[in-house]
Amino acid sequence: MDILKILDKKREGKELEKKEIEFFVENYTNGTIPDYQAAALIMAICINGMTADEILSLTMAMANSGDILDLKDISKNIVDKHSTGGVGDKVTIILAPIIASLGIPVAKMSGRGLGITGGTADKLESIPGYNVNLSIEEFKKNVKDIKISLISQTLNLAPADKKIYALRDTISCAKSVPLIASSIMSKKIAAGANHIVLDVTCGSGAFMKTKAEAKNLAKMMNLIGEWSKRETKCIITSMDEPLGYAVGNNLEIIEAVKALKGDMPEDIKEVVLTLGAYMIRLAKKGDNIVENKEKILKVINNGKAFKKFKELVEKQGGDISYIEDIEKFEKAKYIMPVLSEKSGFVEKLDANIVGQVSVDLGAGRKQKEDIIDNAVGITLVKKISDEVKKGDILAYVHASTPEKATEAVENMQKAYKFTSKKVKKPNTILEVV
Amino acid sequence: MDILKILDKKREGKELEKKEIEFFVENYTNGTIPDYQAAALIMAICINGMTADEILSLTMAMANSGDILDLKDISKNIVDKHSTGGVGDKVTIILAPIIASLGIPVAKMSGRGLGITGGTADKLESIPGYNVNLSIEEFKKNVKDIKISLISQTLNLAPADKKIYALRDTISCAKSVPLIASSIMSKKIAAGANHIVLDVTCGSGAFMKTKAEAKNLAKMMNLIGEWSKRETKCIITSMDEPLGYAVGNNLEIIEAVKALKGDMPEDIKEVVLTLGAYMIRLAKKGDNIVENKEKILKVINNGKAFKKFKELVEKQGGDISYIEDIEKFEKAKYIMPVLSEKSGFVEKLDANIVGQVSVDLGAGRKQKEDIIDNAVGITLVKKISDEVKKGDILAYVHASTPEKATEAVENMQKAYKFTSKKVKKPNTILEVV
Repeated sequence: MDILKILDKKREGKELEKKEIEFFVENYTNGTIPDYQAAALIMAICINGMTADEILSLTMAMANSGDILDLKDISKNIVDKHSTGGVGDKVTIILAPIIASLGIPVAKMSGRGLGITGGTADKLESIPGYNVNLSIEEFKKNVKDIKISLISQTLNLAPADKKIYALRDTISCAKSVPLIASSIMSKKIAAGANHIVLDVTCGSGAFMKTKAEAKNLAKMMNLIGEWSKRETKCIITSMDEPLGYAVGNNLEIIEAVKALKGDMPEDIKEVVLTLGAYMIRLAKKGDNIVENKEKILKVINNGKAFKKFKELVEKQGGDISYIEDIEKFEKAKYIMPVLSEKSGFVEKLDANIVGQVSVDLGAGRKQKEDIIDNAVGITLVKKISDEVKKGDILAYVHASTPEKATEAVENMQKAYKFTSKKVKKPNTILEVV
Repeated sequence: MDILKILDKKREGKELEKKEIEFFVENYTNGTIPDYQAAALIMAICINGMTADEILSLTMAMANSGDILDLKDISKNIVDKHSTGGVGDKVTIILAPIIASLGIPVAKMSGRGLGITGGTADKLESIPGYNVNLSIEEFKKNVKDIKISLISQTLNLAPADKKIYALRDTISCAKSVPLIASSIMSKKIAAGANHIVLDVTCGSGAFMKTKAEAKNLAKMMNLIGEWSKRETKCIITSMDEPLGYAVGNNLEIIEAVKALKGDMPEDIKEVVLTLGAYMIRLAKKGDNIVENKEKILKVINNGKAFKKFKELVEKQGGDISYIEDIEKFEKAKYIMPVLSEKSGFVEKLDANIVGQVSVDLGAGRKQKEDIIDNAVGITLVKKISDEVKKGDILAYVHASTPEKATEAVENMQKAYKFTSKKVKKPNTILEVV
């Protein structure tokens, strides 16, 4: 096998064979193929696209490049949930205990945050004592014992994807739909799921800026799911404004706890109910989506979901007194209101700007090695469609220094756009694909 | 300026601005842009092509990346000649003294050989004492004094091209016409020519395999010439069989000396007369091509061209006794005939195979640092259209060991194909573009 011949074929837009893709993935991962040859191939793929067979070969080769988690002894139907990322997305923390409290096992590894996108593992770690670094044995034992475990990615899952993903970023090839789809699906397959519900976000705070792009990606991932025999459902959700009202680790955990106790913002509720209903269906525990949503509301209202969350936190070493009394969470030193300079209806609330402000405050990472400040972040007061009078509080910034607070307040002003006309509340669930 | 934005544009097939191409060329040459980003951009260019403006910007940026030779004080009309490479191509060594003997200055830097393609600088060095490494001052002084100097590339000409060329080879992007055209033209422009005659070879021993490919490249180089105000003429020549009968440094110098004394194989004569006639026209010394060819024949027949060659060799420190008595050139230890195993007419004589055999014998370089054996090589006896009887001598191999001789004889058999039907002598000049 010769990388030059592979480059030649892809440059000319020909289809690569399975063994050629496997050769590339294996030898790029082990360092035999240098970055510049991989970069040329990735660019050729970006421009000339990939056939269905190629995408499946790439997905499976990347999935098989590292460890594959085997969860068959826990259940035949392991349902995983994944979001393509957004600002204020605490859905996993709310949804996982709900699903587990319905008797469906949830064995989930979550990522860290990078850029404006937060990470579930970071959010969980803001609960004092919560250990996201369990061994695989403990992880599986917890799922057997209490139906749930949420940890960070401790296994060496899809290292080929990690390397190719990092390279794509540096050569402006991040936005290729076949490459995004195979990247996500390779990680899910390696994580042991055989049923996958995907939250495909779109809008200013998401990777896919338009619904059309998101739908294209969703269809591709459904196809990969079909070919690889992993039942997959994609929910396209709006990420024009942040999800819920809180951005920042402590603030989001507090919002998640409130949600599990029934106090759930409308947009979070929409996402939790829809994703959850499809997870129940994929786990073969109910085919009717409307009934499944009622089951979810029931375990929230009767306290079972919240109880399951406390069980989870306790089992992983977390201090449940924080969950029982959210006032215990450390607060930022400087909390400053963002006052509206205009009157009118909120027409836009740019999730990308809110995400940037939260990173600047220290709630997110600019670089992989940055340390997150759990106390800082943003709490929104006004969201799209809300009526505002000049001088009203639009949001609060939670900062570690007065300088950072002032800067954040200024930047938050740019996130809001107003209009004199009434604005319709936007839908969060855009389509199920 | 941001390389990611440049990559983005080219990936989407958009036109790059002049300043963006200059930014890339400058920063890749100085090492600021790493190989993997350059590889991705080159691949995007290979696939999406380049507009006329882009090709011109790239050519000029590469030409300006190093030294630019200024020959204006020698003549307003400096004519350069370049070949895209072939097997047995000693045309420069014959043509340069001819042109100089007509009073047209020839200031030419030639390359080294690599792979099956020989280099004029190597061939000249096989004349004992000949110094190809003159200073630029000596080089220009010689041209002023005797109208001619032939040296190797001592200046730092188009270093950007050197780096991009090397990268292209490793990512299967060598065959892009815009990139080949800008590579050749950037070097010619840096070498100070304002009139350029290009020998665009095609066939098994050339980079361009078909006439259509060669014509495409020729047109592109003519356009670059037009845009950059360098009058350019391309002669498409066949490189299906080697040019002339000799391959190897000493053997080719001997053939060149004979040619300058009037004993010129038909194919070499065609190329020398055609290229030379256009060089005379571009130097504004005669517009009529037929008459120009007669002028060339005249300086061969009256000995002026040969005299000029001796002057050149003497001026550059070479021992002219070798030129006066070609028997003085060192001969290979083992000279073995290649005997025909069939009877018939020679239908094919694969220049690529002959080139490979010559490299294996030590007459060419596999790697840049290899040392060439001047004595070894091949002398052909039969060429395309010649009639052959079983047992006739097809060629001689000139080798340093019996083993190499035997191997070369075996491989040379594969270069020949025979047919029972009469074969027409192929044209060497295919088209003037």
